[in-house]
Amino acid sequence: MTTRAELDTIVSTASLVAPIVASTTDIERALWLEAVADALDARVDDLVALANEESSLGVPRLTGEVARTTGQLRLFARVVREGSYLDATIDHADPGSTPPSPDLRRVMRPLGPVAVFAASNFPFAFSVAGGDTASALAVGCPVIVKAHPGHPRLSRLTASIVTEALRNADAPDGVFALVEGVETGIDLVNSPAIEAVGFTGSLHGGRALFDVASSRPKPIPFYGELGSLNPVLVTPAAVSADLAAGLAGSFTLGVGQFCTKPGVVFVPQGAGFEALLADAVGTPQPAPMLTPGLAATFAEGLERLQQRAETIVGAQQEPGSGTPVVLATTVADVLADPEALLVECFGPTTLLVRYESVDEALAAIAVIGGTLTATLHAAEGDDVADLADALARVSGRVLFGGWPTGVAVTWAQQHGGPWPSTTSPTHTSVGAAAVRRWVRPVAYQSAPSAVLPPALRDENPLGIPQRVDGVLTLP
Amino acid sequence: MTTRAELDTIVSTASLVAPIVASTTDIERALWLEAVADALDARVDDLVALANEESSLGVPRLTGEVARTTGQLRLFARVVREGSYLDATIDHADPGSTPPSPDLRRVMRPLGPVAVFAASNFPFAFSVAGGDTASALAVGCPVIVKAHPGHPRLSRLTASIVTEALRNADAPDGVFALVEGVETGIDLVNSPAIEAVGFTGSLHGGRALFDVASSRPKPIPFYGELGSLNPVLVTPAAVSADLAAGLAGSFTLGVGQFCTKPGVVFVPQGAGFEALLADAVGTPQPAPMLTPGLAATFAEGLERLQQRAETIVGAQQEPGSGTPVVLATTVADVLADPEALLVECFGPTTLLVRYESVDEALAAIAVIGGTLTATLHAAEGDDVADLADALARVSGRVLFGGWPTGVAVTWAQQHGGPWPSTTSPTHTSVGAAAVRRWVRPVAYQSAPSAVLPPALRDENPLGIPQRVDGVLTLP
Repeated sequence: MTTRAELDTIVSTASLVAPIVASTTDIERALWLEAVADALDARVDDLVALANEESSLGVPRLTGEVARTTGQLRLFARVVREGSYLDATIDHADPGSTPPSPDLRRVMRPLGPVAVFAASNFPFAFSVAGGDTASALAVGCPVIVKAHPGHPRLSRLTASIVTEALRNADAPDGVFALVEGVETGIDLVNSPAIEAVGFTGSLHGGRALFDVASSRPKPIPFYGELGSLNPVLVTPAAVSADLAAGLAGSFTLGVGQFCTKPGVVFVPQGAGFEALLADAVGTPQPAPMLTPGLAATFAEGLERLQQRAETIVGAQQEPGSGTPVVLATTVADVLADPEALLVECFGPTTLLVRYESVDEALAAIAVIGGTLTATLHAAEGDDVADLADALARVSGRVLFGGWPTGVAVTWAQQHGGPWPSTTSPTHTSVGAAAVRRWVRPVAYQSAPSAVLPPALRDENPLGIPQRVDGVLTLP
Repeated sequence: MTTRAELDTIVSTASLVAPIVASTTDIERALWLEAVADALDARVDDLVALANEESSLGVPRLTGEVARTTGQLRLFARVVREGSYLDATIDHADPGSTPPSPDLRRVMRPLGPVAVFAASNFPFAFSVAGGDTASALAVGCPVIVKAHPGHPRLSRLTASIVTEALRNADAPDGVFALVEGVETGIDLVNSPAIEAVGFTGSLHGGRALFDVASSRPKPIPFYGELGSLNPVLVTPAAVSADLAAGLAGSFTLGVGQFCTKPGVVFVPQGAGFEALLADAVGTPQPAPMLTPGLAATFAEGLERLQQRAETIVGAQQEPGSGTPVVLATTVADVLADPEALLVECFGPTTLLVRYESVDEALAAIAVIGGTLTATLHAAEGDDVADLADALARVSGRVLFGGWPTGVAVTWAQQHGGPWPSTTSPTHTSVGAAAVRRWVRPVAYQSAPSAVLPPALRDENPLGIPQRVDGVLTLP
């Protein structure tokens, strides 16, 4: 565990180094990220072996996750080189307007030191060198990661690789650090020098830290990705054995330990989807979960759901493991007690909700409030416009076919959504736009050209998009 | 005062109408805003007369403020027509990537019904039809304004003009409403259907409402513009009688009732600036403040400051009025007790802080924490790079010459800053980017073209900027 004195030193170092990091160029920081990516790739075997020991997620999945993580670091390098994130905006003086308008130029600057809380279920992509760390470093914020206790040795190994790669790439010491311990995490959020927090984890833990961040003497932005139900709606014409097989694969992927696991599936009453899914799941097999605590929480959550819903595919849970379970209920029952049935149960289970009309299903989806994803399985000829709109109203990503468990890391990805799926519906934690969480705008009025950040100079030395007198211009 | 039952009806109407408003086009809403602007301009004489009765801000200033307000409505109409705010991003499917990447398209959508708290000091530009209302309507959010009690009759007249103009422009009923009363305001923030809050006012009141918004069962974004010190730094070579005259004009403008009033001015020790400013201020004359309460708060704040700082230009305060006062102290005294001296005193006063070295002054500025503006008055030949950087670190707008009290409404304006100047340093409440506060991203995965919002279609029917496969493209 990190001691209070160690934490204080780490935070004050981050604070001292913040102006230096802020003054580096986007190109310099892009090179840091690429150096970190290369260093992690070079150690992929060691990293995966250790991750598998601590998480039991399996070598193929973990190897893929390292590639995703280093791809993510490289994407953020491209994002800051491209420069749109700076939102460079130039309004030349207009002496003829009433009142006369001065020369004004606006650009994004880093917020300062940020805290990142690692998740257990993605020991690479949402952990020490994951998306929060990469996006914050990309824009020039020092990062202090609070390690997840589910993979402490992997966290330390990753941190040592990151630290060494940053140093070799000439990043200043103190731009990145790792801390450990629950109390340390709370103290970190309460540290006056911390300017923002990124968090991926449970609704309970996220809400508690959000409350800490919001009730500081100086409140700070808290970007929490919490739980998500990820509803799926299947139209009558879309019911098929293939679809059932797809769902079985998605809700059991990674032992159901995905924040995008389809937790609730609206299926047409009497279309036989339950039997198709039961066939697709077959005989449920236990698989080790990330931590004994998560397995126990899963078993408890299941038990509560089983008291209110029918069990279609059942299994006795074993300590430390999760075994697939399929439950079923009706929209009427969901609407009678949404808080009991529409709750995330993190692990390999999904709740089928039989609907008699699509409107009825949508009424239940509206009660979910907010979710990272919402998926529609329809067939050729189904009228999906209203459904799509209703799903977009409650979610951050609407899928037409496919399964939400895959989250591509691209420019257009959105991994966020209304409460309770996140604390901050206006942002994303995956994809290019994730950098936006860590910057704030500063305008320069009547500034001499020599003082202006390069992004704001008329000659556009960075070759980035600029909005000039209201018109977006490309380099 | 609005009754609880009336509020409930207003909020539930806004909630019901929100999906309809969200489905309107940017062009339709641009026409709404322009209709509101035209209607206000057509009633400028009535509006200004009533505003002057209630605020005593004077006909010329209020006439200018109506023009600013209608200009602001028209700017937001241009902003949504231009369409960059939608952040339209298209990633075509990439079956060759590992893992294969689906078609993903991301766009901004309105958050839903928002609450806007009007300010007293700008009865047009930051009130019923002000920037928060205009920017939220622009992107398709129903708006419920909590009127400021400082100008109740003007609020009702403005609201009736806005309501009629919106109706005549075919906006749906319920897209805009006015409510009154302190308790009503708190109930409004606590209403489950409200998705975000805009606020302009005091640190005390803003913090209280921020805490309400953050501690709801479902927390919501709270964009509060609170108090600001707006430090000015004058280099030795910049000291002049003209500069003193400029400062006198700025800190007394509108009886000092600007959130951008220069509250603290760092002046070189022994350069004679105090005498120049005393000359410029002349014999202080009382002028009516916005409300008797504000005048009383000003007098109390002054008294506290006068116990610790020297009075250079003094005046007995009269009930209901504010009379200019100039105070002076040293950096050493400020650093000894920053919380006593670095406090906003809303009204016609400014505190000169004598510095012996620029580094000393910057140490005091760093203690301010966050401010909307920071102004540098330097002379040809002064090295200002480090100063500019230090000022940018604590503020949202850095001015090189001039005075912060003018806030141009343009694309590049930034009216925001680190705590305590706002609750949300990543946003602005003035300028084109103010619309960003009221939208959240939604990604569409593998969506049929017919279902996609027009902004995301390959043929780009809206003719807006789109990022396609990572490349920003103009129409």
